[in-house]
Amino acid sequence: MPREAGARRAGRRPGTSGTRDAILLSARRHFAELGYDRATLRAIAAEAGVDPALVAHFFGSKQRLFLSVVELPFEPAEVLPGLLSGDRESVGERMARFAISVLDDPEARARVVGMVRAAASEPEAARMLRELLTRSLFTPIAEALGEQDAMLRANLTGSQIVGLVMARHVVGVEPLASLEGDALAAAIAPTLQRYLTAPLG
Amino acid sequence: MPREAGARRAGRRPGTSGTRDAILLSARRHFAELGYDRATLRAIAAEAGVDPALVAHFFGSKQRLFLSVVELPFEPAEVLPGLLSGDRESVGERMARFAISVLDDPEARARVVGMVRAAASEPEAARMLRELLTRSLFTPIAEALGEQDAMLRANLTGSQIVGLVMARHVVGVEPLASLEGDALAAAIAPTLQRYLTAPLG
Repeated sequence: MPREAGARRAGRRPGTSGTRDAILLSARRHFAELGYDRATLRAIAAEAGVDPALVAHFFGSKQRLFLSVVELPFEPAEVLPGLLSGDRESVGERMARFAISVLDDPEARARVVGMVRAAASEPEAARMLRELLTRSLFTPIAEALGEQDAMLRANLTGSQIVGLVMARHVVGVEPLASLEGDALAAAIAPTLQRYLTAPLG
Repeated sequence: MPREAGARRAGRRPGTSGTRDAILLSARRHFAELGYDRATLRAIAAEAGVDPALVAHFFGSKQRLFLSVVELPFEPAEVLPGLLSGDRESVGERMARFAISVLDDPEARARVVGMVRAAASEPEAARMLRELLTRSLFTPIAEALGEQDAMLRANLTGSQIVGLVMARHVVGVEPLASLEGDALAAAIAPTLQRYLTAPLG
């Protein structure tokens, strides 16, 4: 479920130079085609026709450049209403199945794992991811829930999902890493259901 | 709750040279005193009296060197029996309170966050962490539980705790990052209780 590259570029940062835009365009293509690990600042700079030092000047590090161009592998405004409306008793199952289906898609998974890696590597990248998640996921989820402690509920839901990314896809602990998707959804859906709708203790 | 540096060093890898041991000794001290980010391979090599290239030769990267010397900030064999024996209906609460108390301690938290960072940075470090967690935590937890799917239960418990490390301490999403420990324990204890003892769906 990739989104059109550059869809959110226009107007995103006022006063950007052509050089900066050329770097962003090149970075988007390299990260999308090669993944986080195989993309290099040198190759991104070469395709943008600039010196690698300029990339460092504008973006500081590969982590920060990555989070400047990365987007969630789905469009929250398109996906969240369907997950959060409907039967409130099964919202945890819908969220679990959606998260697992995203992480089952190799391209989407690579993007999510890249975000987690970047955030774990550098405090500035962690701050960028925090802002992205708060704006694009936690706030709309909390608004749709309309429950007491709704932001905390969204955070807790996110904590179980990012924990799944780490345990299943980054560290790869067994048997969790090989668990079939339906069994995994059954195991975590009640957790998400409680975080989203039940008394928090 | 730091453990004695070097406690598990003897005999850990057969055929190590004096140089390798000197690097490990220096690395332990640097990571413990400076934390993962501020420790440098150059300074570790200098204190060991070796060329930095030798550190790269033996250990490949800072991540791998870190995971060669890091240990959990508690001794599982001392802690797990008390957590897992006793009233089975409150094992989730004991696990939640213990995890939160470890992460409340700055030195212990730095070590855990360093492990997560190293694993997120590099597949080889992720493999080392997977082996450490499987041997030191998941296997003894699964044996003590004696339930069906006990390893999966231990994995799922770990996934929520590592998710908490990421969401609360690495990415720092709010209000979860500022939530007081008792409220957090109340929120996640039922999750751990279900993963450890209830039907998994």
